[in-house]
Amino acid sequence: MIEDTVGAFMPGPRVEIPGATEGPLVGLNFAVKDLFDVAGTVTGYGNPDWARTHAPAAATAPVVLTLIQAGAMLRGKTKTVELAYGLTGENVWYGTPINSAAPDRFPGGSSCGSAAAVAAGLVDFALGSDTGGSVRIPASYCGIFGIRPSWGAVNLTGACPLGPSFDTPGWFAAKAEVLRRVGDVLLPPGGEGPLGPLLKVQEAWINAVPATAAALTPALGAVERVLGPMLSVSLVPETLDTLYGHFRAAQAEEAWASLGSWVEAVRPKFGPGVGERFAVAKATEPEKAAAARAFRNKFRTRVRALLTGGAVLAYPTSPIPAPKLEIDQDAQQAIRERTIGVTAIAGMGGLCEISIPAAKVDGVPVGLSLVAASGRDRALLALAEQVANELKL
Amino acid sequence: MIEDTVGAFMPGPRVEIPGATEGPLVGLNFAVKDLFDVAGTVTGYGNPDWARTHAPAAATAPVVLTLIQAGAMLRGKTKTVELAYGLTGENVWYGTPINSAAPDRFPGGSSCGSAAAVAAGLVDFALGSDTGGSVRIPASYCGIFGIRPSWGAVNLTGACPLGPSFDTPGWFAAKAEVLRRVGDVLLPPGGEGPLGPLLKVQEAWINAVPATAAALTPALGAVERVLGPMLSVSLVPETLDTLYGHFRAAQAEEAWASLGSWVEAVRPKFGPGVGERFAVAKATEPEKAAAARAFRNKFRTRVRALLTGGAVLAYPTSPIPAPKLEIDQDAQQAIRERTIGVTAIAGMGGLCEISIPAAKVDGVPVGLSLVAASGRDRALLALAEQVANELKL
Repeated sequence: MIEDTVGAFMPGPRVEIPGATEGPLVGLNFAVKDLFDVAGTVTGYGNPDWARTHAPAAATAPVVLTLIQAGAMLRGKTKTVELAYGLTGENVWYGTPINSAAPDRFPGGSSCGSAAAVAAGLVDFALGSDTGGSVRIPASYCGIFGIRPSWGAVNLTGACPLGPSFDTPGWFAAKAEVLRRVGDVLLPPGGEGPLGPLLKVQEAWINAVPATAAALTPALGAVERVLGPMLSVSLVPETLDTLYGHFRAAQAEEAWASLGSWVEAVRPKFGPGVGERFAVAKATEPEKAAAARAFRNKFRTRVRALLTGGAVLAYPTSPIPAPKLEIDQDAQQAIRERTIGVTAIAGMGGLCEISIPAAKVDGVPVGLSLVAASGRDRALLALAEQVANELKL
Repeated sequence: MIEDTVGAFMPGPRVEIPGATEGPLVGLNFAVKDLFDVAGTVTGYGNPDWARTHAPAAATAPVVLTLIQAGAMLRGKTKTVELAYGLTGENVWYGTPINSAAPDRFPGGSSCGSAAAVAAGLVDFALGSDTGGSVRIPASYCGIFGIRPSWGAVNLTGACPLGPSFDTPGWFAAKAEVLRRVGDVLLPPGGEGPLGPLLKVQEAWINAVPATAAALTPALGAVERVLGPMLSVSLVPETLDTLYGHFRAAQAEEAWASLGSWVEAVRPKFGPGVGERFAVAKATEPEKAAAARAFRNKFRTRVRALLTGGAVLAYPTSPIPAPKLEIDQDAQQAIRERTIGVTAIAGMGGLCEISIPAAKVDGVPVGLSLVAASGRDRALLALAEQVANELKL
């Protein structure tokens, strides 16, 4: 059993399943966020009341099975933010995993344990999930690679829902090559081929704190060496705040539709912030959610038209490096809003996104995101590998 | 015979051919730039020595025949800049056509007579040709609609060449509906369907004089009402000067390849500027032309990727309103360079472009260009008609 030096795994008995003896992932260890089912174990979803009120899973999630059958060995289940509804990675019930790249800062979430496990080198890769940034943000905070694949590209059966029209699996790795090899196994065929041009999304660079933007600028040069000269584009003339507002309304409605009946029936104890977010979700006005869905349709049409020929968006994954552990709920909420204004681009657009650990600000990692049209995941993984080579990552 | 109030037609006997009695263009009169062949008449190409050394055409250019067979009546051939090698519309041998929208200013060229004839209401539409802006610039200067269709979309057989890999026919009309109806007849099938998003090309707006940019901004609002919110994009990070330089080298090499042997054999008399441009064309270094072709390939890949999903570029057709007739050759050359930096976007990109008479600066027309991917001419014509309705043109 792997020693858990960073508190990434769920406490208690560790579920381990050896991989198939042959396959493309033989020799790799992985961990799985504790919102994916593994047969015979209770899926905890980050909250003790959830664990208490759910029976052991009858079947293993297909995405986990696929990885095992490809030869990877499951080394355990990792902590998640409660019901995946948070971006810091805090979990007051099981302990917040340590961000080994910046131990006094949050690891990011909701897939906090998976990111922490990879960042600490406990496993070669780890499975997470992403609704509003839950793979991309911890990847950026912890200084590792993370992919949110195109919505619908990878099977989510056997995973707890948060916002089904946004939810995707996702995975982390310390090496771009491993990230790509996992994609080779999980992604549907197709989507390869050249990408370009490179589009610098103006709003997202302006939204980032200056030190983050400055630290990531050299990495853009590396992407230019691969894709050719960068063009600058405004993608959200309505402002990122508007994008955040619509994302929040659409996601909140779905969160309540997915989890509200359980919350009402069980009245679970939540850690700071989570219960408040469900209260907001419950109060979502139907007209706001409808307006959000209408906006999403228009936004999706716009970005698909722009990216369908192969264009790649580039921006800081998170506008702000991992916040310090002691910041209060108000500060967390401000960061959350500023962050989701950016992560909602791929979420609302149905795009695939990879965060590359491209730079550090005062020793704290910041990720550069590359984003492509839905279905171009394989090409994007190949691009990330090329960029990683350019950056000698 | 139509009275030529603006000196648009070639002097001497006027060639007139009635249109077919049935067809989509019945009732419309048109004129043809005197670089398209009409059987039995000498194609003059704007220069008396050209006319003197060429026999009457044996066949009518297919594009002219198609228009006649569709019911339009040919009302004569119009003046062109000598060998189509100039943008002001000046012709010292036959007289520069009068720009009825701004009589003290150039009509623009090289398709000066066709633009002047439409602007003065002598004909419903007129055929021109466009290598580096020869339809778009006179359309902008004269306050009428003009289209440069996608390269290769409309048959150029029977037209004198200038830069074959850039040359396209094109046409002018005072009404967007007529512009579109001519396209219905001349364009190959396909290419309809929704366009968007709208992309404001930053460099081209910065390149325009402030009064032109300001005058055209309300028209952008009209395009937004049709296509949705405008995004802002940098398309030529290498600078428009670089684009101009490469365009000039590629075009000059082709101009000399197309016309050099005639120039050398005949040693024609040229008006101001034209001979100088051929001298430059002759001196084009092969390495520069090769670099220009290589740049064009990259640029074309880039813009095609960006526009293939339906995106539409928008920018001032010409950065400067029609110059006054008295400006000297140096001033003309400066305007030429600044103008071709913009017109070369569609030229180098192989795109289709329509200039809409969207505004005036101190009473002088300025055009707004909408530009779409190669092959989307029909959709672009439909869009121009919608925008014209929004602008009540």
